[in-house]
Amino acid sequence: MYFHVQQLIHEITQDEPDPAAANALQEGLGGQFGEMRTMMQYLFQAMNFRGPAGKPYRDLLQGIGTEEISHVELIGTTISRLLDGSPRYQGKPEDPLDKPGSDGATPLNIALDTGNIHHYLVAAQGALPVDAAGNPWLGSYVYNSGNLVLDLLYNLMLESTGRLQKCRIYEMTDNKTARSTISYLIVRDQAHENAYAKALESLGVKWNTVLPIPKTNAEKFPEVKKLLDLGLQSKQYTFDLTGHSEAGKIFQGMSPSNDGTTLDASEQAPAGAPLTIAPERFEEFSPGLDPELLALIQATADMELADVDAMFGPVKSGVVSSVDAASTGAKGEKTSQ
Amino acid sequence: MYFHVQQLIHEITQDEPDPAAANALQEGLGGQFGEMRTMMQYLFQAMNFRGPAGKPYRDLLQGIGTEEISHVELIGTTISRLLDGSPRYQGKPEDPLDKPGSDGATPLNIALDTGNIHHYLVAAQGALPVDAAGNPWLGSYVYNSGNLVLDLLYNLMLESTGRLQKCRIYEMTDNKTARSTISYLIVRDQAHENAYAKALESLGVKWNTVLPIPKTNAEKFPEVKKLLDLGLQSKQYTFDLTGHSEAGKIFQGMSPSNDGTTLDASEQAPAGAPLTIAPERFEEFSPGLDPELLALIQATADMELADVDAMFGPVKSGVVSSVDAASTGAKGEKTSQ
Amino acid sequence: MYFHVQQLIHEITQDEPDPAAANALQEGLGGQFGEMRTMMQYLFQAMNFRGPAGKPYRDLLQGIGTEEISHVELIGTTISRLLDGSPRYQGKPEDPLDKPGSDGATPLNIALDTGNIHHYLVAAQGALPVDAAGNPWLGSYVYNSGNLVLDLLYNLMLESTGRLQKCRIYEMTDNKTARSTISYLIVRDQAHENAYAKALESLGVKWNTVLPIPKTNAEKFPEVKKLLDLGLQSKQYTFDLTGHSEAGKIFQGMSPSNDGTTLDASEQAPAGAPLTIAPERFEEFSPGLDPELLALIQATADMELADVDAMFGPVKSGVVSSVDAASTGAKGEKTSQ
Amino acid sequence: MYFHVQQLIHEITQDEPDPAAANALQEGLGGQFGEMRTMMQYLFQAMNFRGPAGKPYRDLLQGIGTEEISHVELIGTTISRLLDGSPRYQGKPEDPLDKPGSDGATPLNIALDTGNIHHYLVAAQGALPVDAAGNPWLGSYVYNSGNLVLDLLYNLMLESTGRLQKCRIYEMTDNKTARSTISYLIVRDQAHENAYAKALESLGVKWNTVLPIPKTNAEKFPEVKKLLDLGLQSKQYTFDLTGHSEAGKIFQGMSPSNDGTTLDASEQAPAGAPLTIAPERFEEFSPGLDPELLALIQATADMELADVDAMFGPVKSGVVSSVDAASTGAKGEKTSQ
Amino acid sequence: MYFHVQQLIHEITQDEPDPAAANALQEGLGGQFGEMRTMMQYLFQAMNFRGPAGKPYRDLLQGIGTEEISHVELIGTTISRLLDGSPRYQGKPEDPLDKPGSDGATPLNIALDTGNIHHYLVAAQGALPVDAAGNPWLGSYVYNSGNLVLDLLYNLMLESTGRLQKCRIYEMTDNKTARSTISYLIVRDQAHENAYAKALESLGVKWNTVLPIPKTNAEKFPEVKKLLDLGLQSKQYTFDLTGHSEAGKIFQGMSPSNDGTTLDASEQAPAGAPLTIAPERFEEFSPGLDPELLALIQATADMELADVDAMFGPVKSGVVSSVDAASTGAKGEKTSQ
Amino acid sequence: MYFHVQQLIHEITQDEPDPAAANALQEGLGGQFGEMRTMMQYLFQAMNFRGPAGKPYRDLLQGIGTEEISHVELIGTTISRLLDGSPRYQGKPEDPLDKPGSDGATPLNIALDTGNIHHYLVAAQGALPVDAAGNPWLGSYVYNSGNLVLDLLYNLMLESTGRLQKCRIYEMTDNKTARSTISYLIVRDQAHENAYAKALESLGVKWNTVLPIPKTNAEKFPEVKKLLDLGLQSKQYTFDLTGHSEAGKIFQGMSPSNDGTTLDASEQAPAGAPLTIAPERFEEFSPGLDPELLALIQATADMELADVDAMFGPVKSGVVSSVDAASTGAKGEKTSQ
Repeated sequence: MYFHVQQLIHEITQDEPDPAAANALQEGLGGQFGEMRTMMQYLFQAMNFRGPAGKPYRDLLQGIGTEEISHVELIGTTISRLLDGSPRYQGKPEDPLDKPGSDGATPLNIALDTGNIHHYLVAAQGALPVDAAGNPWLGSYVYNSGNLVLDLLYNLMLESTGRLQKCRIYEMTDNKTARSTISYLIVRDQAHENAYAKALESLGVKWNTVLPIPKTNAEKFPEVKKLLDLGLQSKQYTFDLTGHSEAGKIFQGMSPSNDGTTLDASEQAPAGAPLTIAPERFEEFSPGLDPELLALIQATADMELADVDAMFGPVKSGVVSSVDAASTGAKGEKTSQ
Repeated sequence: MYFHVQQLIHEITQDEPDPAAANALQEGLGGQFGEMRTMMQYLFQAMNFRGPAGKPYRDLLQGIGTEEISHVELIGTTISRLLDGSPRYQGKPEDPLDKPGSDGATPLNIALDTGNIHHYLVAAQGALPVDAAGNPWLGSYVYNSGNLVLDLLYNLMLESTGRLQKCRIYEMTDNKTARSTISYLIVRDQAHENAYAKALESLGVKWNTVLPIPKTNAEKFPEVKKLLDLGLQSKQYTFDLTGHSEAGKIFQGMSPSNDGTTLDASEQAPAGAPLTIAPERFEEFSPGLDPELLALIQATADMELADVDAMFGPVKSGVVSSVDAASTGAKGEKTSQ
Repeated sequence: MYFHVQQLIHEITQDEPDPAAANALQEGLGGQFGEMRTMMQYLFQAMNFRGPAGKPYRDLLQGIGTEEISHVELIGTTISRLLDGSPRYQGKPEDPLDKPGSDGATPLNIALDTGNIHHYLVAAQGALPVDAAGNPWLGSYVYNSGNLVLDLLYNLMLESTGRLQKCRIYEMTDNKTARSTISYLIVRDQAHENAYAKALESLGVKWNTVLPIPKTNAEKFPEVKKLLDLGLQSKQYTFDLTGHSEAGKIFQGMSPSNDGTTLDASEQAPAGAPLTIAPERFEEFSPGLDPELLALIQATADMELADVDAMFGPVKSGVVSSVDAASTGAKGEKTSQ
Repeated sequence: MYFHVQQLIHEITQDEPDPAAANALQEGLGGQFGEMRTMMQYLFQAMNFRGPAGKPYRDLLQGIGTEEISHVELIGTTISRLLDGSPRYQGKPEDPLDKPGSDGATPLNIALDTGNIHHYLVAAQGALPVDAAGNPWLGSYVYNSGNLVLDLLYNLMLESTGRLQKCRIYEMTDNKTARSTISYLIVRDQAHENAYAKALESLGVKWNTVLPIPKTNAEKFPEVKKLLDLGLQSKQYTFDLTGHSEAGKIFQGMSPSNDGTTLDASEQAPAGAPLTIAPERFEEFSPGLDPELLALIQATADMELADVDAMFGPVKSGVVSSVDAASTGAKGEKTSQ
Repeated sequence: MYFHVQQLIHEITQDEPDPAAANALQEGLGGQFGEMRTMMQYLFQAMNFRGPAGKPYRDLLQGIGTEEISHVELIGTTISRLLDGSPRYQGKPEDPLDKPGSDGATPLNIALDTGNIHHYLVAAQGALPVDAAGNPWLGSYVYNSGNLVLDLLYNLMLESTGRLQKCRIYEMTDNKTARSTISYLIVRDQAHENAYAKALESLGVKWNTVLPIPKTNAEKFPEVKKLLDLGLQSKQYTFDLTGHSEAGKIFQGMSPSNDGTTLDASEQAPAGAPLTIAPERFEEFSPGLDPELLALIQATADMELADVDAMFGPVKSGVVSSVDAASTGAKGEKTSQ
Repeated sequence: MYFHVQQLIHEITQDEPDPAAANALQEGLGGQFGEMRTMMQYLFQAMNFRGPAGKPYRDLLQGIGTEEISHVELIGTTISRLLDGSPRYQGKPEDPLDKPGSDGATPLNIALDTGNIHHYLVAAQGALPVDAAGNPWLGSYVYNSGNLVLDLLYNLMLESTGRLQKCRIYEMTDNKTARSTISYLIVRDQAHENAYAKALESLGVKWNTVLPIPKTNAEKFPEVKKLLDLGLQSKQYTFDLTGHSEAGKIFQGMSPSNDGTTLDASEQAPAGAPLTIAPERFEEFSPGLDPELLALIQATADMELADVDAMFGPVKSGVVSSVDAASTGAKGEKTSQ
């Protein structure tokens, strides 16, 4: 069973909208080696897992799989931010965006010369479940042979390829919003690569100096170096609410990447970052509520917000350490907050 | 950011293996109107959501989307259970399964006359991300127009169609394992249908007696009736760890289905049920560890389990109410258990 | 612009339901060489046609393309008829179909061992836009090179392959419903093959004795022979309401198949056959109106039917020769009937 | 059974070629919510329809489905017109188009920097059965649950989404050819949305002010406003040649969109507009007849045209009111023209 | 540049036709881990190879890739043999196959209850480029990251998965025709696994006892054991006509599988086995030549065969050692034979 | 069984990198009418061939199919050459390519505005198994009806369409690298068209002046004219190592294209051209060996090369006429070189 907190797993740096960078990032979301794929692959491998003796391996798969859902959320939101408002930013100022098509204006003209016209035509300047060339995500991407050693080998290759592609995306754009997310995912892919490499070490393989595969020297990327210095490539969170994960039996000891760090699986989750809601886009008819409906909803919301404030105090946009213990009980008595 | 507990959202009733039923259930997992689709659709709609005034709608989408991940886990695990051991149960007893192919035996002979040969050839008697006719799941299933009213209308139709197909699956098999999961999902689909119908009511639509769509009279199905009597069609959990969800502003008041119940969104999550690991399948080379590797791993596991027991006491396979509050802090100090 | 009459282009012979035959016929509907493909291919070739001097060729494509829409209607309806009621016919009598799932009954049990489970799970015992192996129809099937000679050559091959596959389907089943439609389409495919072969003759090709390709000797099939004796392989209708088609400039003279017949394009359309509506299927929740809704609709229908009868007399289910000339005016004054 | 007249359902306004606009329009032709999809969906729903009591609903589906074939013809022809001659218009004048590739010329150079290179490489500057991102049309788009209420709900959503996307396309280009067709289809989508909304009203739903969904205020688009003023959003044609359609039992009374209009299904078809044949494109080898073949065909055509003129007088490119009643008889006696 | 000899790379054992086994083998031909995929993947990796210093690696890829073309030929031919004549063998004897459909016979009745109806409906009892579940082969299967270490890692996993699936296929059938080919490919997959594992060893990886992955103990399969005893798992042929391959620099030394064998790349190719042509199938209209055409072709063939015999002596169906040196010159002077 | 020589079937002319031309050429590699398709189609038709009397036809298919593998190699390598180094050539010089991403550089910036971003993101500036619009190659492209006459007719159309599309590609670019390969393939497609046309002539068809289809007058393209003057459109090689091919029984006599040439199948293969290995691309992490690994490999290679030279003399990069006779024996004793 899964739970959610209204937090991003990593913060997104602010920069100008950049639809070309957004489209490159789609590979990291909906591509054959992107986050939707890693997420689904590990969730299936965990569901179909065989052999109770292998519980630490199952828990490792489950923990990384759970993290990947948050990665989908992170990169999807990043793509949305990169697309959001791009017509206003780069479009023709004489076409007012808040009066869509009025008097024959063409506020979405930018869409005709962009990486994927569907970002404007279908997705209202939001992320899509497709890759950077526009191919829809495919169930046949998921690899789950049922043979543990093979699955681990595949996963190692999968994380390595994901990291390779993200290093290439890094080289395609200097947009700060794109790079902050890409850099974080590069380092986390390396952590997962370490996890699967270590699991294979537990079965006898010696990697010597061949890891990481590939050697992209990503520490040359300034944003990546900052995260490597924090040791994020050698941490694995459990994302397990009840502390039953045994993944730490595998993810421990010296890093197989020979970077001198020690693997650490003692933390449940990173601190998190605020998760905000994007503004409306009139030129996309999104969300498409007309003024009367908006007024109705706003009135309701204001009224209820007052109630909420009265009862709980102002809504906190806190870090994960504010995850409330008491609220995780099945009956969810929120009053104890 | 997402978290996991090692619990199923609903328990799976035990029965004989049944690969034909397993294959029918694939539609509910990887079909165009199955749980992978609802999950992805709502997660995308939540990520790409526009308009802070609509937060209650966003939170409703986020909450149902999070539940759908658990539904993927539930139905995927159910399919695995239905497939697991089917060669032994229905195959030729003269071909010992624990000596795969030895002396020319054919322990997987059953695979040649089954709904989807990939269940044995590719997935080692586990679930696949495909539908009941074998089509891989497709990213283009996801609908996210960016227009809130349209998205709600689509979601209502999506839940209704999912429920319709599950009622038909119910009519195809009397396997208890299959029916217990299908019946649970029928009732939860109805709850989600109520959620989207209610959201549309908040925008002005009056459904009168047309809900639920379709009127499958599923209360005639004994397993479904039991859950309806518990009112599960009128509950929506938040699955939100910090209590920030405002979905309850929408999911409240009389049910739009006119069944006399009141909608209730006050609980965080259902109680959960044990999540076990399936046995090995030698005839599938799954997990594929040879005796030496198994011995090595078991030794490690035993040694570390002893350590764990020493520190925490025996591992609990508890219900969700045992979710430990203290363990949700970012630093995950498990000692307080 | 297109028009419709409530008539089938050929009558469907009555026989028992037969889901296996229905599934084989799916190749003729949604297969790579089926009627959806010929229809779309010729409509695209007609739309994109270049060169006013080639109007007779364009009109030939347009006329055959229009006929193919009626073939889609014919074979789709045939598949529906073959599926309709198959659970009652071949299923377990102890499971009443009119009380779907009541007391745990399994009226759709037949679906688990059938050609395509989607016929029962998705399509309510109706036709699907897929082929006999379950692959969805694909836009990339459509061939339209823009080069007239190549397009004609492709079309000749397309009709020949469609006919070849239908002759094989004929050999798979002796169900009369399936065979009556398949036999009609075999003969019409041959007529279209003659059309494209003749068009290529007009450009210089001499076929000598090589036509028809392939030589399936379909006259050995009794149902086919009857239609060949009527000369249906040498007729092409215009389906053009205003008589502007110049297809007859090509489809004339001796048949390129050397069967001694003369090609004839002087008729507008065949006589047609009654098009009826199938009964409800409770076990599929189709159409899914509950008794109250049905009563409401029936009342409305009865009332209005009375009005209609008062004005026009009883509804005729006439042959095409009853197509009313006067009713084709833009204002649709039906009173002259 | 289907018939055709050599008329477009709406006229296409002349403007310069515009391949970028053409590619955006592909979404309206071959996209998931485009005209090929609505056409196929309604034809399948009509073919597979169950329950004779629901004939007015069936006839409504059949009538709209028939109209959609004409929409495919309209938007496909529009795309062809937008592409046709674009190399000459926007390409390099030093590369003569009528001598393709002669002396190493590159008359198709424009293709390397365009929305979909297949428009030049595969389709000879014609329309393709793909969407604006190049994805081929897919049979699995078609939704036909067999449950009438669900199908109506889906169709309402489908028309609404199609209209939403077309409003976005309108905002992407000011090419008059593109806009005239898009505006017409926006208004017709709204008429179909009204049809399905009204059908759901007949089953009990009250829409109040929520329609149309979405509220794109398309009356701000000048070309759309002109058509709305003519009331085209509240008319539905039968396209039924014999007047047996009972769709008018549903499509009547006040518009569910609350725009003060009354729904009207009394007309058979709109007046139509001339359907012309595009010129040859030598640089595409289209139609690919060499001078000798062209001379041969032209001679034949001239000769036969003389015959036709002698018999019928000059070919009329008349409006639909010129559809000749007498020509609809099965024997097609054209002499009465 | 590629050449061919009219020899199979391994002989096919004779047994009864077996369409179910044929369909299982399709996974090995057109599946995601089948021979079409390995062939294409290695040919692309060889074509796109970077870095002249890596020529031995490129040559290894090129050599294995070339072998895979022969594997496609072997498994494709095996599938054809398993399908060929299955209607006669398993069908109804009262329907004569040499008079297809005559008097309403149903000689292809078997097709309605088989693994893939397309084997009879589309492919005339021949192999198809699809997997065992009927999915067409997909270009996106091909993995070629451009990073040598990653590509080797992927290839190792690919061969291992192919072998795993083939071991499962072995367990599904005891048909001798199927098993002879499957067993050969199991052993060759292991040879390729050794090749990629050794290449990774050259980069520093130590596999210890983890190879082969998975440990299927295929030596328990009698047919496999025979080939292992011959050491086929430790040989790699160059298939290079001019002896320029440097693959032997990698494929040498102790086998990484620790089975005590030494890797050997000194042979150019295996001896080969006769490649025969299948008989006609009248019930499939294959090849579809009518008696007159057959007579014409036979006469021509006889006449020319006489000429050939006169000039060269009787045609040899020799082993590969009969590959004629002199015939490989560009001018192909065959006289020296 | 297949063999390889390290030679290209035709030389590639040097020119600047040109990613737009590279992407257009993808249609010729992975498109529906490209070389991967012709290769697979003919190999399947040869494998599944029926009727020993038709051996000359089988051998014709086998020979052309074998040639197509070399065409895949040629056009794939050409695409690689056109992509290779394009960032350096057309990118920003201030971003050094040999220090990928160092200090935040964007050496792959060019990828954001190119025909297919996957060329840089996935394929490391190499060829992909996709078409020019990015669609992956599909197994369902392969046509093999089992009916010889139909297959020949399809193949004729296939070659003609491939040639048509290549003539259009020629008109899109004047890059010499692109044009040299395209021109060669245009002429070879015409040779194959002649082969299938001649085969159909042997069955009775008379083409008169309609061939070639289409009449693109490609002799106006200077590069094509040079090859036509050499008569390459009328030659067919056997690519058969042992001289058993009987294709010459068909490919003989006057060309069906009426260009005055005589068909000639007496040669085994063309002379071939050098096949070189592309340089490394640091900005793609390709091949991804770090300096230590490179040093290790180089040392090994140098050492072993010395051994080889000592034994065989310097490696020859000879033409095909240097294919060594003695090396084709199964034991491959290279010493006789």
